[in-house]
Amino acid sequence: MSIIVKKFGGSSVKDIHRIKAIARRIVKEYKKGDHIVIVISAIGDTTDELYSLAHQITPFPSEREMDMLLSAGERISMSLLSMALNNFGFRAISFTGSQSGIITTNDHCNAKIKDIRAFRIKQELDRGKIVIVAGFQGVSENKEVTTLGRGGSDTTAVALACYLNADKCQIFTDVDGVFNANPDVIKKAKKFDKINFQEMLIMAYSGAKIIHPRAVEFAQKYQIPITICSSFNNNPGTLIYGNDKMEEVKFKAITDKQNLAIIKFSVKQAKLKHILELTNQKNLIFESFQQLNNNVIIITNETDSERIRHLLHDFNISEIFTESGLAEITLIGKSFTQNFAIINKLNSILTKNNINIKMLESRKLAISVFVNEKDKNKTVKLLYDNFIELCE
Amino acid sequence: MSIIVKKFGGSSVKDIHRIKAIARRIVKEYKKGDHIVIVISAIGDTTDELYSLAHQITPFPSEREMDMLLSAGERISMSLLSMALNNFGFRAISFTGSQSGIITTNDHCNAKIKDIRAFRIKQELDRGKIVIVAGFQGVSENKEVTTLGRGGSDTTAVALACYLNADKCQIFTDVDGVFNANPDVIKKAKKFDKINFQEMLIMAYSGAKIIHPRAVEFAQKYQIPITICSSFNNNPGTLIYGNDKMEEVKFKAITDKQNLAIIKFSVKQAKLKHILELTNQKNLIFESFQQLNNNVIIITNETDSERIRHLLHDFNISEIFTESGLAEITLIGKSFTQNFAIINKLNSILTKNNINIKMLESRKLAISVFVNEKDKNKTVKLLYDNFIELCE
Repeated sequence: MSIIVKKFGGSSVKDIHRIKAIARRIVKEYKKGDHIVIVISAIGDTTDELYSLAHQITPFPSEREMDMLLSAGERISMSLLSMALNNFGFRAISFTGSQSGIITTNDHCNAKIKDIRAFRIKQELDRGKIVIVAGFQGVSENKEVTTLGRGGSDTTAVALACYLNADKCQIFTDVDGVFNANPDVIKKAKKFDKINFQEMLIMAYSGAKIIHPRAVEFAQKYQIPITICSSFNNNPGTLIYGNDKMEEVKFKAITDKQNLAIIKFSVKQAKLKHILELTNQKNLIFESFQQLNNNVIIITNETDSERIRHLLHDFNISEIFTESGLAEITLIGKSFTQNFAIINKLNSILTKNNINIKMLESRKLAISVFVNEKDKNKTVKLLYDNFIELCE
Repeated sequence: MSIIVKKFGGSSVKDIHRIKAIARRIVKEYKKGDHIVIVISAIGDTTDELYSLAHQITPFPSEREMDMLLSAGERISMSLLSMALNNFGFRAISFTGSQSGIITTNDHCNAKIKDIRAFRIKQELDRGKIVIVAGFQGVSENKEVTTLGRGGSDTTAVALACYLNADKCQIFTDVDGVFNANPDVIKKAKKFDKINFQEMLIMAYSGAKIIHPRAVEFAQKYQIPITICSSFNNNPGTLIYGNDKMEEVKFKAITDKQNLAIIKFSVKQAKLKHILELTNQKNLIFESFQQLNNNVIIITNETDSERIRHLLHDFNISEIFTESGLAEITLIGKSFTQNFAIINKLNSILTKNNINIKMLESRKLAISVFVNEKDKNKTVKLLYDNFIELCE
């Protein structure tokens, strides 16, 4: 008998209607005779709403209490899904991160899974029950509730598949699989049948929201194949697996990200270390961070940017340059670091089309340009036509 | 140094503004140098909303999953209150029922507290922290999340006061204390400075929503004095304490309750036992239950009445008489059981005023009349004027 781990994200369980639909789908699979473990996220925007409640109280809530707060979200979705399965006549049981034995480090809001003591899950699977596990959350060794950070449910699913030695790990989402560009922008974007871990990792880091980069890293480390598929249809999806070397000449995919801000300032080395420690402690996320002598450039999301400015002011840094409303477009597929011809081509295409490049960052296997949000879709289209399509 | 247990219900923490106000109030008390333990309910109507979500999925949700669902409510309120206290510069920590060591029976949705292993609470109090405990919830010995049923937060507060050997137990609510009639109906209703356990217990059972009867029973058993006071002002409130015998001649108070339904049906003894077992199992609450030969009368709230009818139909009981939209008015204070003079007086007053008595129930220290909801306030006023005021 196989063990199948299925993860359903917030959009798959956004209301009672969807929860019932998911339950129907699970029941069909269960009838085939497999052991089913469901990893579930909070309903729709619950996590964001709870996050916002906390920030109505204080700009820097205690992370220990934040974990207590956010972990309420999955309790709601998992118990409702369990009731829906019961209602269809199937035995199901929901478990919190703690009851599932997901032991994490004590880093509140950003904990790492250390171990999964899944004996309760195994016991209930053996009893023929469908087991529902709260994604995103765990418990530290000193019995504190922890969360794994954004995208944590993906990590829960992959880690569970690993510890349970599952036969399949499926991430259900609201699109059909992994595309070579954002299908909302590029109508002709193509779905991958298969993509390797390294490619998926770069895409995930540079804006493909389909799976969280940490989950991909975990899967790559333990070589767990993952299928990304839609919770709305039965199309085959995309298999993420293997380490095939990428062909040097091919541009593979393009990703985009928005609501970004650039913060620039000058600061002495010693002070910077202090600032970085504090931002880390306050769990502010940098998308990118560069330092040239005493000049610092931080790329971050707009929500955190306000809080980072706040913090810099506390350090008496008055000359802060901030630009928000930015988008990042990333071209993935070959080594750009020393490839000036590609950078020149990219530059000339965008300039010719009156797109102002705010910043350009090239790294191994990916190159990113930062432009105004209004130019995002135009940039994606230009780069898709000139790089992805031309190279096929 | 004293230990003070303070319980804040849903109306005291109905939004972010109120949570901040409560935090300010707690800080003032903390500064006096006492150890403060807060027991908190879910925000406003959260519990009702979660309850309704479950019933959108199935009329009879699994009670184990219901507990998982409902226990999310206090996580939200307690972590937000803790953040608010932190934000004012005070150290606070929130604990779930499980982390607080509230060990219960395994009766989901209606668990009883068996023990409180409050070592984590004591440890944090010793470290100078304000401790916030999730009301209404606990954990069974086999590590399952349980809830204590409606009014469970009151019970948590009283039980904690008992196990922590607290000096004070204060229940904060949205009124100034315990009144001798519903102040919404009787403007001249008087607040008690003190009331004994027995009196409070009858009032709580017959509609005074200020404190849950189970909490009063617990307090009476262990002789824990309780103060009921407003979370909106600093008025002294009502002290519930002692067992002074009630004076025989005095009518003490009047309570009222609405949204009730009467269900009448005929059934064989054996079948009835079965029905009662099943309703108990489904956690349907009877306010009152009478059996005369094979005729059964059930008084219940309107929400449960639909579900009880549903269940009776499953038992092939077709002749069911139901009347809903009823109110119960209870006169408290002396033995009515054999006191026909009082019953006659009550009957004649209501009849003279064209109020149709649907049912009358007399018991030790209380007499209840059931009338149409539209006659509720009129009945309360008539009984107040003719019994309470005349006897002062």
